[in-house]
Amino acid sequence: MLILASASPRRRDLLAQARYTFQIIPSEVPEDPHPNETPIGYVLRLAREKAEAVAESPAFKAFTQTQQEPSLILGADTTVVAPNGEILGKPADDADAARMLRLLSGATHQVITGVALLAPRENSAITEVAAEVTWVTMLTPSEEDIALYIATGEPRGKAGAYAIQGQAARWIPRIHGCYFNVVGLPLALVASMIEGVASRISAMKEELLKAPR
Amino acid sequence: MLILASASPRRRDLLAQARYTFQIIPSEVPEDPHPNETPIGYVLRLAREKAEAVAESPAFKAFTQTQQEPSLILGADTTVVAPNGEILGKPADDADAARMLRLLSGATHQVITGVALLAPRENSAITEVAAEVTWVTMLTPSEEDIALYIATGEPRGKAGAYAIQGQAARWIPRIHGCYFNVVGLPLALVASMIEGVASRISAMKEELLKAPR
Repeated sequence: MLILASASPRRRDLLAQARYTFQIIPSEVPEDPHPNETPIGYVLRLAREKAEAVAESPAFKAFTQTQQEPSLILGADTTVVAPNGEILGKPADDADAARMLRLLSGATHQVITGVALLAPRENSAITEVAAEVTWVTMLTPSEEDIALYIATGEPRGKAGAYAIQGQAARWIPRIHGCYFNVVGLPLALVASMIEGVASRISAMKEELLKAPR
Repeated sequence: MLILASASPRRRDLLAQARYTFQIIPSEVPEDPHPNETPIGYVLRLAREKAEAVAESPAFKAFTQTQQEPSLILGADTTVVAPNGEILGKPADDADAARMLRLLSGATHQVITGVALLAPRENSAITEVAAEVTWVTMLTPSEEDIALYIATGEPRGKAGAYAIQGQAARWIPRIHGCYFNVVGLPLALVASMIEGVASRISAMKEELLKAPR
């Protein structure tokens, strides 16, 4: 069974869109970047920490006892890198959201999602991590547009203070890369990671069956 | 008031996502490409024909009599151009859908939407037309994946026999251009066209007010 280590409704909706069957066990890890951490290093670390926190949680341990098949835990973290190199997480308040939107206005920025897939086993674990980068070009919303947008509440809780799947759509004429990555989960990458880990697990099972008892 | 000349639920949802207020008056025009018509010429012609068909319709004429403000009619047509240059409209049946998906598999194709914005006036009309092209890269679904996908019914009624906003998402690692164009309506392009036509209408109004009576 696939476990989504995230309370994000966007990630839940994306996995459901791709027709995965999954359980949600949210994890809470501190989201502060370390000093001198690169954006990719940061999202990879958070994705792994989220998956590992779930693997250690009582909720997960209780869940696995009800399951025959091995579980796969999917952790993910999405961040926005402004054209000036600043990592933009979720805005602290409305003024911070306006500051972020001004940083992104009229330019191309990166959206990076780190993905970790963790298959906990008796005495070890398989972990795959990967990051996906999408380039997003934003038009130049006026100060009035920005104020109206913030008043809708949409920027709250969104990395970089916007939702491409929401009203900000009309300011985004162009992206380069995976669209679903910008929403919060790069589906094609996740699909290939799941396929890879699943085939490694069955290869290991066959290996064990072949081994003398 | 903005009038959407399309019965497509995707276009309706996209306009609503961008928070436009609009009315729907669907139009039916034949969708066969002319001999030697280019894909861009084809979608521009269909978008214009859809908008013009609504402008001439009794439903539109009845509607405008209830309105003070001028109406803007938005026509759009989306098509897929396979890597071999073939224009892919909606699949005729399941076998046709499978044929289309095989043409798109493992390669990059174009999705083109033609947009026409028509502001009918007493003795003339302002019409703007534009086309948006997005490049979409598809992974290589297996024959079994294709059969399962067609069985879900999702390819029906979709140009190129897939929906990026649906389950096909997991086969699409990357696009280049406007995402919403692939769904059926390039929102940033539509927003700039509406702004342009609206400012031309108000400029004309001011011109009329300045003219001696």
